[in-house]
Amino acid sequence: MTDLFWPGDERAGDHFTTASLLRAMVDVEEEWLDRLGHPADLLPLLDGLDPQALARAAEGGGNPVIPLVAALRAALGDSDPGRWLHRGLTSQDVLDTALVALAADAVVALRADLDRLAARLGDLARTHRDTPMVGRTLTQHAVPTTFGLRAAQWLTAVLDADDGLALLGFPDQLGGAAGTRAASAELGLDLGDAQAPWHTVRTTVTALGDALVTTTDGLARIAADVLVMARPEVGELAEGSPGGSSTMPGKANPVLSVLVRRAALTTPQLAATLHVAAAGQVDDRADGAWHAEWATLRDLVRRTLVAASQAVDLVGGLVVDTDRMAATLAGAGDAVLAEQATMAGLAGHAPHASYLGEAGRLVDRVLERLEER
Amino acid sequence: MTDLFWPGDERAGDHFTTASLLRAMVDVEEEWLDRLGHPADLLPLLDGLDPQALARAAEGGGNPVIPLVAALRAALGDSDPGRWLHRGLTSQDVLDTALVALAADAVVALRADLDRLAARLGDLARTHRDTPMVGRTLTQHAVPTTFGLRAAQWLTAVLDADDGLALLGFPDQLGGAAGTRAASAELGLDLGDAQAPWHTVRTTVTALGDALVTTTDGLARIAADVLVMARPEVGELAEGSPGGSSTMPGKANPVLSVLVRRAALTTPQLAATLHVAAAGQVDDRADGAWHAEWATLRDLVRRTLVAASQAVDLVGGLVVDTDRMAATLAGAGDAVLAEQATMAGLAGHAPHASYLGEAGRLVDRVLERLEER
Amino acid sequence: MTDLFWPGDERAGDHFTTASLLRAMVDVEEEWLDRLGHPADLLPLLDGLDPQALARAAEGGGNPVIPLVAALRAALGDSDPGRWLHRGLTSQDVLDTALVALAADAVVALRADLDRLAARLGDLARTHRDTPMVGRTLTQHAVPTTFGLRAAQWLTAVLDADDGLALLGFPDQLGGAAGTRAASAELGLDLGDAQAPWHTVRTTVTALGDALVTTTDGLARIAADVLVMARPEVGELAEGSPGGSSTMPGKANPVLSVLVRRAALTTPQLAATLHVAAAGQVDDRADGAWHAEWATLRDLVRRTLVAASQAVDLVGGLVVDTDRMAATLAGAGDAVLAEQATMAGLAGHAPHASYLGEAGRLVDRVLERLEER
Amino acid sequence: MTDLFWPGDERAGDHFTTASLLRAMVDVEEEWLDRLGHPADLLPLLDGLDPQALARAAEGGGNPVIPLVAALRAALGDSDPGRWLHRGLTSQDVLDTALVALAADAVVALRADLDRLAARLGDLARTHRDTPMVGRTLTQHAVPTTFGLRAAQWLTAVLDADDGLALLGFPDQLGGAAGTRAASAELGLDLGDAQAPWHTVRTTVTALGDALVTTTDGLARIAADVLVMARPEVGELAEGSPGGSSTMPGKANPVLSVLVRRAALTTPQLAATLHVAAAGQVDDRADGAWHAEWATLRDLVRRTLVAASQAVDLVGGLVVDTDRMAATLAGAGDAVLAEQATMAGLAGHAPHASYLGEAGRLVDRVLERLEER
Repeated sequence: MTDLFWPGDERAGDHFTTASLLRAMVDVEEEWLDRLGHPADLLPLLDGLDPQALARAAEGGGNPVIPLVAALRAALGDSDPGRWLHRGLTSQDVLDTALVALAADAVVALRADLDRLAARLGDLARTHRDTPMVGRTLTQHAVPTTFGLRAAQWLTAVLDADDGLALLGFPDQLGGAAGTRAASAELGLDLGDAQAPWHTVRTTVTALGDALVTTTDGLARIAADVLVMARPEVGELAEGSPGGSSTMPGKANPVLSVLVRRAALTTPQLAATLHVAAAGQVDDRADGAWHAEWATLRDLVRRTLVAASQAVDLVGGLVVDTDRMAATLAGAGDAVLAEQATMAGLAGHAPHASYLGEAGRLVDRVLERLEER
Repeated sequence: MTDLFWPGDERAGDHFTTASLLRAMVDVEEEWLDRLGHPADLLPLLDGLDPQALARAAEGGGNPVIPLVAALRAALGDSDPGRWLHRGLTSQDVLDTALVALAADAVVALRADLDRLAARLGDLARTHRDTPMVGRTLTQHAVPTTFGLRAAQWLTAVLDADDGLALLGFPDQLGGAAGTRAASAELGLDLGDAQAPWHTVRTTVTALGDALVTTTDGLARIAADVLVMARPEVGELAEGSPGGSSTMPGKANPVLSVLVRRAALTTPQLAATLHVAAAGQVDDRADGAWHAEWATLRDLVRRTLVAASQAVDLVGGLVVDTDRMAATLAGAGDAVLAEQATMAGLAGHAPHASYLGEAGRLVDRVLERLEER
Repeated sequence: MTDLFWPGDERAGDHFTTASLLRAMVDVEEEWLDRLGHPADLLPLLDGLDPQALARAAEGGGNPVIPLVAALRAALGDSDPGRWLHRGLTSQDVLDTALVALAADAVVALRADLDRLAARLGDLARTHRDTPMVGRTLTQHAVPTTFGLRAAQWLTAVLDADDGLALLGFPDQLGGAAGTRAASAELGLDLGDAQAPWHTVRTTVTALGDALVTTTDGLARIAADVLVMARPEVGELAEGSPGGSSTMPGKANPVLSVLVRRAALTTPQLAATLHVAAAGQVDDRADGAWHAEWATLRDLVRRTLVAASQAVDLVGGLVVDTDRMAATLAGAGDAVLAEQATMAGLAGHAPHASYLGEAGRLVDRVLERLEER
Repeated sequence: MTDLFWPGDERAGDHFTTASLLRAMVDVEEEWLDRLGHPADLLPLLDGLDPQALARAAEGGGNPVIPLVAALRAALGDSDPGRWLHRGLTSQDVLDTALVALAADAVVALRADLDRLAARLGDLARTHRDTPMVGRTLTQHAVPTTFGLRAAQWLTAVLDADDGLALLGFPDQLGGAAGTRAASAELGLDLGDAQAPWHTVRTTVTALGDALVTTTDGLARIAADVLVMARPEVGELAEGSPGGSSTMPGKANPVLSVLVRRAALTTPQLAATLHVAAAGQVDDRADGAWHAEWATLRDLVRRTLVAASQAVDLVGGLVVDTDRMAATLAGAGDAVLAEQATMAGLAGHAPHASYLGEAGRLVDRVLERLEER
C-alpha cells in the first residue's frame, strides 16, 4: 500500500489495509465456527472474493461484515459450516474483534520500532553525555546544557509512549445482537469466561488512540528539535540523508523530520474523534459513533507506524556537529552564566568551573530506565 | 475507489484519488510549459508512469512532485519541453495548484448534489407545510409545529452550506522557490496578473475545510432528526431503503442516516487540523504544516461528497407517517398547549383554534430563498 | 466560583481557581525555601497580594510566576528568605509543580465522585439485574436485554475511567532554567532522587487530559441513554428532578443529562489541544506550547468535576419505569425473537423460555469488579 | 476581567464577561417588552441582581435565562411589564440573541485592532519593500527574498481574516418555544420581517468560530516567523519590549509572539467543538449541543481579541535588523543563486543582477489591497 497524499505510507506495510481487514474478519468467523464445533477452513475462500464488491456492498447494511458473511455463506453453500457460519455473532462482534486483532499486530510492530529508536537514542545520549551546548528557552539562549541531556529527553518521550502502549488491552468482542449473548446461549455455547462485551463502552478504542497520539507527540518532539537545530544559522544537527528540491540544486531538506511533524499535526484530532465517538455511544449499538471509528483508527495506526519508522531512520542518521555546539555556547558568552553568578554570590563562593549541574546524572538515570526495561 | 473502512466511499468517484492527483499535477506542468512557450502533450506520458513507484519515491523529497518531475523529464528526454519542464515552478506550486483544481471539481459535484438535495427538501417542506406534529425541545414535547417547518430548517442548513461553498476561491499557486517568482522572471515570464502566491497563507485551504464541515454539519442535522423520528417508539419517519442485520431477520436500520452522521463526527476535527496547520506556517514553506494538509483535505472532500450523495437518497426515499405525527400530537394532549393558555389569558382572548403561529409563513420564506437562488 | 456560561460550574468548587493556583505556587516556593534551608511562612503573604494585579503583570514575562516572585520578594524585603526565594528554580518549575498539585487534588475529588457514582450504578444494576427491556441497535428494536445490563455497561464505563485516573502520576517539576539543575547544584543542593525534569516531555499533562476525557466519555454514555429513554415516546427513564422551561408550564427537561452531554462535546477537543501542545515542544522550554496548556487543563478538570457531580445526582435520582419497559418489550412482539427462532431451529430444539442469554451473569461480573476494587 | 491561567486576558476587556452577558440578556428582554407595547426600563434592575446567585440557579433549567426572568419578574412585581415580561420568547431566543449581540460588539473591536495591525504591517511592507533577506523553505536557505514581501504575506493573512469577519451576520433569534412564533402570534405580534429562527441550524455560530480561528491562524503566522527570526542565531528580528526571566538576568524573550502562538494552538479545537455541536443539533432545541457553545464561544472570542491586541503591539514594536538580514544573505553565498544559474543558462543569458523576481510588485499589490479597503 502506498498513498500519494501521505509520502512514506508504505512503511506501514499491510497494517490496516483492506486485505488485512478482510483476512482478520474471516479469521474471526473461522474461530467462531471452531467454538461452535462446526469448523471450516475459511481463509482459502478469501481468494474468491472481490474486495471492491464487498466494499461497495458494505453500504447497504452500513458495515462490511454483512456482505462478507453473505459471500462466505454463498461459497460454503448448504454445508454444515455454511449453516452455522456467524450464528451467535453480530456484525459488531466480527468487526471489533478484527480491528482489535489488527491493532494488536500493529502495536507489536510499532513497539519494535520504538525499541530500535530507543536504542539509538540511548547511544546518542551515552555518546554525548558530556557534550556541551547552549540551552534554549522561549527560543533564546538560557544556561548551558548537554546534547546528551537533550537526547535523554527525547528518549524519555519515547519510553513514556512505549509504556502507554504496553498497557493496552486487545479484547475480543463477543456479545451477539445486543450484547447479551442470547444467540450463543441458545446454541448451547457458554462464553462465561470471555471478555464481557463492550459494544458501547469504547475504552479499548480510545485508549489505543490516546497511546498512539502520545507516540506521535514524542516523535514530533524529536523532529521539532532537529528542525530548529538543522537550520543553517544553528547548524548543530543535520539529517543523514536529507531531501532535495524540485528546483533548487544542492538543497538539503530535513525531510524525515518534516514528515514526522506532519503526522503529529494530524493525530491529536483523530484521537479526539475517537473520544467524540465514545461519548456519542447510545443504546446497544450506536447510530454512527461506532462507524466513525474504523477509518479514523486506520489512519491513526498507519501514520504512527510511518512516523516511528521514519524516526528510526532520522535518529540513526543524525549528524551531530559538536564543534558547532561548542562554538555557539562559547559565542553566547557570559550572558548564559549570569544566573550562575547570582547563585555563586548568594552561596558565597566562586562560580564552579562547570555550570552543567546534574545534567550527566540525569542522562544516566534515563539510560538506566532504558536498560531496566 | 472503494474503502472497506468507509462504506459508501465509492460515491465520491474519482475525486481526490491517486490517479486524479497525478493527472492534475501533470496538467499543471503542461499549462506551465504552454506559458513558457515550450508546449508538450504531457498527459499521454502518464500511462507510462507507475503510481505506486511515484508514491514510494515521494518520501525522498517529502512530496510527490519531485519524483513526478523526474519521471516526466526522463520520458521527455533531451527534447525542448524536457529541458523547460517545471522551470520556474517549485513543488508547492504544482501540488497546491493541482489540489485546488481537484477541490474546484469536487465542489462543483458537491453543489450539484446539494442542489438535488435542496430540491427534494423543498418538495418535502411544500408538501408538509401544514402537517402538524409535536415540537420537541430538550427531548421533551414542547408546543405543536409542522413537519414542513422541520424540513424547511433542514433546507436552511443545506442552503447555508451551499452559500459557503459558493464563496470559495480556487486560486492557482505560482510563486517559485520562495514565492518571489524569481525563476520565472529570470526566464522572462511576467506573472503580474496572476493570483499572488499564498505558500504560507493558507486561507484558501482553511476556507475550503470550513465550508466542507459546515456542509456535513447541515447533513448531520437532517440525519439526527431521522434517527430520532425513525425510532419505533416515535415512528414518524422511516428510511425508504433501510439496511438489514447480519443476524436479526427483518431488522430495518436507518443506515443512510447512520452513515451521514458518521461523517459529521469526523470532519470537524479534520477541519481543525487544517487550521492547526495554517497556524503553523512559517518561513517561505512550512516544515510539516503544509504536508499535513493533503490527506486531510482528501478525506474531508470525499467524506463530504459521500455524505451529500447519501443525504440525497435519504431525503428522496424518506417515508413520512403523517398519521403517526397527528396521533403523537393528539396524545400529547393539553400539556403542549399550556403555553397558549398563558398567552391567551394574558392577551385576554380565548385561545386561537391553531397554535402554529407563523410556521407556514416561515416555510414559505425558506421556499422563496430556494427559488430565488 | 460560578460561571454564567457554564451552568453547574460551582460544583467544581475551588479546584483550579485563581486563588488555588496562587496558593499552590506559593506552596511550591515555600517548600523550596525549606529545601534550601532558609524557611519562611509564605502563605500569610498571599493576603497582601492583589490577584488581579498579578494576573495583569503575568503578561510581561508570559507567565504568572515572575510577578508572584517579585511580589513575594518585595514582601520579604532584605530578609534571608527574601534573598533565597526562588533561587534555583525557574518559572516553569513553579507553575508545573503547582498545576500538578492542583490536578492531584482534583483527581482525588473526582475519584470520590466516581466512587459514589459507581456505588449508585451498582445498586441500579443489582436491582434491575433481571428487569427485561428491549435491546436497541442503530435506533431499532433488536433482541431483549435487561436494564440491569445497561446499568452494568454504564458502570463499566465509569470503572474504566477510574482505572485510568488511578494510573496517573503527579510529579514535581524541579529542573531549573534549562532542566539541568545547574542553579540548585551551584547552591549545593542535591536533587538526585527527585523526579527528573519534564519541561518539554509532557506525558504527565497529556495523560491527565486523556484520563479526564475518558471520564466524560463514560459519563456522556450514561446521559445519552437517559436522553433517549426519557423521551416521552419511550418513557422508560426520567430524571428525578427535571428542569423547567422559561415559557412552557409543566415542562420536565432531563437537564442533568443535557449538561453532562454538553461537557463531553467539549472535552475531546481540549484533550487534543494538550496533545497538539505536547507535539509542539521544542528546545528546553517551548515557545507557546507550554502556555497553551494552563487554561485548557483548568477547563478540562473543572468540566469533568462538574459532569461527574451531576452524574451522581442524575443516577441517584433516576426514575425507572419497569412497567413501561415491559410494555415496550411486549409491544415489540415476535420481531425481537426472530433471531432466537433461527438459532433454535439450527440447534434443533424449541426456543428457550427466555432469550436473555448471559445477561444476568454479565451483570454479576461487573458487580464483582465493583466489589473487588 | 483577568485570568491568571491566560496572561493578557484583560486585553479582551468586558467582552463576553458575566456582566456583559447579563446586560445583553436584559437588553433583549427590554426590547421585547417594547415590541409587546409594555415597555419598562429593565437595566436599572440589574443592580439588584446577584450574578453569582443567577449563575448558581442557572443549572436548574440548564441555562441562565430562566433564573434571570424569574428575578426580573420578582423585581417588577405585579406591574404590567411584570406580567408581559418574556411572554412570547423562549430561553434560547434570549441567550442566542444576547450572545450574538456580544459577538457583534466583539467583532467590531477585533476588526478595529486588525485595522491597526494592518496599517502597521503596511508600513513594514512599504519600508522594507526592497530589503533583501534570505528566503527559507523547509527550514533551509532557499533563494533571496525581501523582508517587505514577508511583511506583505503577514498582511495578506490579516486582510484575509478581516474579509472573513466582514461577512459575518449577527441575527436576532426570535422563534418562541419551538421556533414557530406561536406565542407571539397568540399575543397578536407579527414577526414576519424578522430573521427566521435558527434554533437548530447553527451556521451563525460556526461561521463566527471559523472566522475567529482564521484570525488566530493569521496572527500565529506572524508570530511563527518572529519566533524563528528572533532566535539569537538568526537575529534578524526582535520584539521591542521582550519579557524577562524569573531566574536568568538579562534574558529577553519574545513574549508577545509566544502568547499569540499559544492562542492559535487552542482555537482550532474550540472552533471544531462548535461544529461538533452544530452537527449534533436535533429536534427544536438540542439536548446538550446548544449548551456546549456558550463557554466555547466566549473563550474563542476573548482569546482572539487578546491575540490581536498583542499582535498590534508585537508588530508595532518589532525591531528589524536589516544589516543582519544582509549579512545572512551574503553568508549564504552562491548556494541560494544556484537556481538562478540554471534558469539563466536555460534562457541563454547571463544571470540578472538581482534575483528577486516580482517581489517588489507583489508587495505593491498587497499594499493596494490595503488601501482599497
